[in-house]
Amino acid sequence: MTLNAVLDSVDNNLPGALERLFDLLRIDSISTDPAYSASCKKAANWLVDDLSSMGFEAKRYDTPGHPMVVGHYKTDPGKPHVLFYGHYDVQPVDPLELWHRPPFEPAIEDTPNGRVIRARGAADDKGQVMTFLEACRAWHMQTGSLPINVSVFFEGEEESGSPSLIPFMQANTELLKADMALVCDTGMWDAQTPTISTMLRGMVGEELTITGPSLDLHSGMYGGPAMNPIRVLTKILADLHDDTGRITLPGFYDGVEALPDDVRAQWDSLNHDGGEFLQSVGLSTPAGEKGYSVLEQIWSRPTCDVNGISGGYTGEGFKTVLPSIAQAKVSFRLVGQQDPVKVQQAFYEHVAARLPADCTASYKTKDGSPATVMPVDAPAFKRAQQALTEEWNKEAVYAGCGGSIPVVGHIKDILGMDSLLVGFMLDDDAIHSPNEKYSLTSYHKGIRSWVRILEALAR
Amino acid sequence: MTLNAVLDSVDNNLPGALERLFDLLRIDSISTDPAYSASCKKAANWLVDDLSSMGFEAKRYDTPGHPMVVGHYKTDPGKPHVLFYGHYDVQPVDPLELWHRPPFEPAIEDTPNGRVIRARGAADDKGQVMTFLEACRAWHMQTGSLPINVSVFFEGEEESGSPSLIPFMQANTELLKADMALVCDTGMWDAQTPTISTMLRGMVGEELTITGPSLDLHSGMYGGPAMNPIRVLTKILADLHDDTGRITLPGFYDGVEALPDDVRAQWDSLNHDGGEFLQSVGLSTPAGEKGYSVLEQIWSRPTCDVNGISGGYTGEGFKTVLPSIAQAKVSFRLVGQQDPVKVQQAFYEHVAARLPADCTASYKTKDGSPATVMPVDAPAFKRAQQALTEEWNKEAVYAGCGGSIPVVGHIKDILGMDSLLVGFMLDDDAIHSPNEKYSLTSYHKGIRSWVRILEALAR
Repeated sequence: MTLNAVLDSVDNNLPGALERLFDLLRIDSISTDPAYSASCKKAANWLVDDLSSMGFEAKRYDTPGHPMVVGHYKTDPGKPHVLFYGHYDVQPVDPLELWHRPPFEPAIEDTPNGRVIRARGAADDKGQVMTFLEACRAWHMQTGSLPINVSVFFEGEEESGSPSLIPFMQANTELLKADMALVCDTGMWDAQTPTISTMLRGMVGEELTITGPSLDLHSGMYGGPAMNPIRVLTKILADLHDDTGRITLPGFYDGVEALPDDVRAQWDSLNHDGGEFLQSVGLSTPAGEKGYSVLEQIWSRPTCDVNGISGGYTGEGFKTVLPSIAQAKVSFRLVGQQDPVKVQQAFYEHVAARLPADCTASYKTKDGSPATVMPVDAPAFKRAQQALTEEWNKEAVYAGCGGSIPVVGHIKDILGMDSLLVGFMLDDDAIHSPNEKYSLTSYHKGIRSWVRILEALAR
Repeated sequence: MTLNAVLDSVDNNLPGALERLFDLLRIDSISTDPAYSASCKKAANWLVDDLSSMGFEAKRYDTPGHPMVVGHYKTDPGKPHVLFYGHYDVQPVDPLELWHRPPFEPAIEDTPNGRVIRARGAADDKGQVMTFLEACRAWHMQTGSLPINVSVFFEGEEESGSPSLIPFMQANTELLKADMALVCDTGMWDAQTPTISTMLRGMVGEELTITGPSLDLHSGMYGGPAMNPIRVLTKILADLHDDTGRITLPGFYDGVEALPDDVRAQWDSLNHDGGEFLQSVGLSTPAGEKGYSVLEQIWSRPTCDVNGISGGYTGEGFKTVLPSIAQAKVSFRLVGQQDPVKVQQAFYEHVAARLPADCTASYKTKDGSPATVMPVDAPAFKRAQQALTEEWNKEAVYAGCGGSIPVVGHIKDILGMDSLLVGFMLDDDAIHSPNEKYSLTSYHKGIRSWVRILEALAR
């Protein structure tokens, strides 16, 4: 049986697959910091070379930001055609001192929960990208072809707002068009349960700068009459939530729908332990809206978080400065039919209403995206679910996802395609944090899962 | 006349006095950052050498922090004995890119308001310290003696909370005891009007850290149920002021006294233009308590300011982190009989009352100090006022001071002495900010002023 031969080939070639992933992980492709631009280009070139080595026609496409990579492997025009999306850029590594090994020197480590690949990007998203490429490589090596037509599309700005993504997709719809998209940037329900993510929260992100005095002042000389922009900023931010955890922006909950009964029933059957989930990160009490379970707060309720705040003197010791500016990076996670533009406008109005005469507000916008809900009854979804169930020997579940993957919305809007979201990250992978890791099992069985899904989609 | 000869000597030797000040300004003695410890020691040694060169018995005293310098010039035991206090340490220089020249390469610059000495510490406090030392040097060179007995006491931790000051003063009361103290760390009412500062605000400073989750989290994975410590911190800080600019801590205004009528009358006679004062730093509306003039808000009303805030990702771009900790440096300026310990306790209670179950608060305390009011009717004050009036050819005024000079309280409590506060800084000296400067006139006439005050105090 061809499928089994390809799966055997994955098992036999795992050391090589790890070596290739390590090569990619050694490239410090941090997209948000311009100092790492050359590394992003290097990662893109690495992918072009790797794709070319396994029969793809692949090419780097430069953009005003970091490059895109697109590759095609054409087999039989009568077969389905998928577009696989992933990203080669990674999050910054600060605070570096909390890493127990250099973030760009990957290694296999033994942990109480099994062997893991430790490095920035091991899970998000280089490890996940390579599960798919290694699956293609195994089919190509074993059979000289792939079961279906495959295009791949990698960007290098996912962790920094994807400024080039929409223009590139709009300008290259023919290049990217397929029957459906595959996206590997999500996680598993738990370490044993394969998962297809069917709801994604959307996102609005704004960097807000409040300017008060025209220069930094001495708080002894000016404290009292001079308005401190930190005072203004904290008032603006504190007023975003009421005491019950609800977000106060007028109209914010427009388009937030009650969870359908069948979805709630399926989620209930997952027996999620909200207390244990919080306890694993040192918390005990859900901070979201009262009356919703932890799972609902993550998957089906919108949020507002300040992701960064700064102003005045933040070094060692004390400096009695009354600063000229204060800044915050604020993000909203959206669900259902919430309109990113309306949320953004409501935030601007919230700020304006709290701005004293002597302060000004300015913004840098991170692209907004609405939430996404997938067509879980489509045949391709059912086939993928079956393939995952066979690989993991456990029923694959449909799950929500608290994160935002804006590209899924763009794939729908610009290319007219649904996305099948399959990923193998675990909750404790520490993505976006120090000591990011990817389970060796996720990597190995992730590759095997894609081998099976490619075959299943050919039917 | 001896006095005139000494004053002439000051005029003739001004180039040398500037060279010596520049030598001291070239030492980057930033006390708050441990990286500059050697520079602080170097500045202390420089002062010991300089004092010794003009007849002082001077010595460096090492402490657990930066060293103290004490020197004595004894003349006639029948004459008064003063202790001059100053500090040789300076503020950090960040943001460095806003300086138009390197902060530790002093230079004379021509400006629309006259010639200035540009460097970190030019005004606060190296330039001011040197006005006094150059006055002593002139007397010593011209007459071989000083008009009165003079001790000097310099510390190197004034800009970083003076952790060694109280223990050193307590252990060395005999070394430091005199009839009164002279302190040169304040400013002039305006560029023409010599000033004795007779009210100083006190200070309570606290660095507050709020800890939520045990590690930084991805706001997509955890946003909603996981409490964000920035949300908690902004609530705590926003609640410190009400909408009228009043500070909300219970009992905070205990000990804040109404301004006596005669003091208010004297302040009114200064014709302070609050609008112009604010306009010079890009503001227009007083941010302090309603019902008080700008001058009252600075000199006679207490304040609360956040001097620094940080949490989450604050670099370039966006990172959707939900951070483990958030921090703020908060300071209160105190007046009248406000008790620093009670204010500190009220702040702790304010924080505790707003702390959700899942967050903890921890503190680093900057030494607190009460406000100070001087005995303006004492003969020494009257004589100094007369000497200043003669030098500047304009009536010297008694003024408040919004800043905190904790050492003045310690001089009173530990050594039992009042302090005469005379200084020559101007409002636009940008102390604690980029491009700090000291007017050349402040330096020159400052030296001449001390020459006269030393003579006046001998009467």
